[in-house]
Amino acid sequence: MKSDVTPLKWDNETLYLLDQRILPHQEEWVTVTNVEECFHAIRDMVVRGAPLIGFTAIWGVVLYLKNNSNASLDSYIERLNYLRTARPTAVNLEFEIDKAIIRGSEFHKMNGNWNGFYDEMVQFAKDQMTKLLEDNLAMAKTALDELNGRLEDRPWNVMTICNTGALACGPMGTALGVIEYLGENKKIEKVWVSETRPYMQGIRLTAYELVKLGLPHDIVVEGASNYLMGRNMVDAIFTGADRIASNGDSANKIGTGTLSIIAKYFNVPFYVVAPTSSFDLNINSGDEIDIELRDPNEILSVQGIRIAPNESTAFNPSFDVALAENITGIICEKGLISPVTKENLLRVVNQ
Amino acid sequence: MKSDVTPLKWDNETLYLLDQRILPHQEEWVTVTNVEECFHAIRDMVVRGAPLIGFTAIWGVVLYLKNNSNASLDSYIERLNYLRTARPTAVNLEFEIDKAIIRGSEFHKMNGNWNGFYDEMVQFAKDQMTKLLEDNLAMAKTALDELNGRLEDRPWNVMTICNTGALACGPMGTALGVIEYLGENKKIEKVWVSETRPYMQGIRLTAYELVKLGLPHDIVVEGASNYLMGRNMVDAIFTGADRIASNGDSANKIGTGTLSIIAKYFNVPFYVVAPTSSFDLNINSGDEIDIELRDPNEILSVQGIRIAPNESTAFNPSFDVALAENITGIICEKGLISPVTKENLLRVVNQ
Repeated sequence: MKSDVTPLKWDNETLYLLDQRILPHQEEWVTVTNVEECFHAIRDMVVRGAPLIGFTAIWGVVLYLKNNSNASLDSYIERLNYLRTARPTAVNLEFEIDKAIIRGSEFHKMNGNWNGFYDEMVQFAKDQMTKLLEDNLAMAKTALDELNGRLEDRPWNVMTICNTGALACGPMGTALGVIEYLGENKKIEKVWVSETRPYMQGIRLTAYELVKLGLPHDIVVEGASNYLMGRNMVDAIFTGADRIASNGDSANKIGTGTLSIIAKYFNVPFYVVAPTSSFDLNINSGDEIDIELRDPNEILSVQGIRIAPNESTAFNPSFDVALAENITGIICEKGLISPVTKENLLRVVNQ
Repeated sequence: MKSDVTPLKWDNETLYLLDQRILPHQEEWVTVTNVEECFHAIRDMVVRGAPLIGFTAIWGVVLYLKNNSNASLDSYIERLNYLRTARPTAVNLEFEIDKAIIRGSEFHKMNGNWNGFYDEMVQFAKDQMTKLLEDNLAMAKTALDELNGRLEDRPWNVMTICNTGALACGPMGTALGVIEYLGENKKIEKVWVSETRPYMQGIRLTAYELVKLGLPHDIVVEGASNYLMGRNMVDAIFTGADRIASNGDSANKIGTGTLSIIAKYFNVPFYVVAPTSSFDLNINSGDEIDIELRDPNEILSVQGIRIAPNESTAFNPSFDVALAENITGIICEKGLISPVTKENLLRVVNQ
């Protein structure tokens, strides 16, 4: 299984990125031929979503090697450190750049040149994307099994927030990958899409992917979760995670924690879907997760039009934390963690 | 005390309504000279807010009488029933129309014509607005007493949703009237304003009033309530109500029920502020409250710009119900109902 939506293509030694800033109404590809163009594509949010930023960075390294086959190791490291600064808060970017620096340093010290390293990195980039596809597919299968065991045998109404589809991940999504897989298995009646203020990832990007997938969906405002769940209109909720603490507290897009409390109140199963690379076993709980505060103008203006009075200000935390006690289960490529406790989490992750 | 913001003026036998659809950046008045224009002004949301809709409807009756001094009683009733259908969830509209039909029927049957009824209704409309001002001031005083008894003696961080200020009520607000009064008593540190998607009453109208009042405020997205309350950044929440059932279940703007559950989860006091005219003792619980489903385009487009894919649809319930069990207290002009039970509610209302 592979999503119909492809945000990144490698073709004829060139990287093509679907410009997510102008979706859903325009589908345009940005051509990236060198590491500087890759930097700008990441910084200017042509691509977003932690895994996709990571993949884009790896292809940036590949492009550097293509254009600079005689570069010194120092130049290689300098340009990769430059690429790292495109989105300072994106963990996957840092992670992939660190790996590429270590790998490149070892290769260059052993061989004295870059001969063969370009091909190695092309293969590595492809392998990474294949691995994520396999992992996300494993998560989707786990989710289907879990719902089959818990819900009536009929198509379900599922809800999601933000965008966790192919647009965020590359080959296949996490939470939205689950929903895609449920759809392929004829288990989707309707998808409730939280519009995801302020950046509108739900209404712009998740809805775009659901249109491409042909899955029936209705967009709702965040405030509607009590209305929908109080009327038994939601069978299950799937969200992604940016970082999961060892006790299972999960940081994700602002609104996710709110959604988890409403779900708990109405006994609607609430699942976090994320690969183990999003787990941070060095922290004990969500209290230790730093939350990015973003530009208030993301709230105060929409599509460049100021909505709020000129004198008003806004407070714009970009993420929040769903507490473990409000999460029915965390689904990673190694299986289901449920109930969400530190013991269960470590058992599944370390198996 | 009277707010600096005036949403409705009666001058030279003409009704002028501040066009709330284009606030905060433009202040324009819509001229209303007959009952049909009054219907459209209510339906098209030139005015909104249950009490203001009620007052606008009374002035609509006045305008009908001005233009149709020889109308039959049947015509009078027919046109008032037409006006009643402008907005389904607002109890005040129904309430005022019912009263005007009864009052008009008695008058016409006794006198055989409308001579003098126009002047009587003009005076009635003015008296009603004076009464609401007095009632809302009584509610504000009750709220201050309640918080003084419950919270530390310092300025507080309070949260609200939608717009329940003078723009919603006429002379002075309900929940926002409370906040204004707390501000006058130096008890406001900051007001958290839920932006209130999809119609943006918070970011557009409440922020507009808070600017006029000079009260410090930050606008937040609906999804941020878990973030704020989980970090003890909210001392109390005040919301309005469009209709309150006899058990205390309260219908209000979509997102209010969601907010009440988050407040309960974090033990943040949550108050509904509404005059007894918003109480519907004929219904037992929120299940019996008819919720208006509005145009999906309110979600799909912002400021006339389509955000969602063209193929996507939205589901747009305009209100939801905060359950009595999640409301710390209901504050009406007769006092505080807390804990919120049918017995307490009837005791306060009938005193």
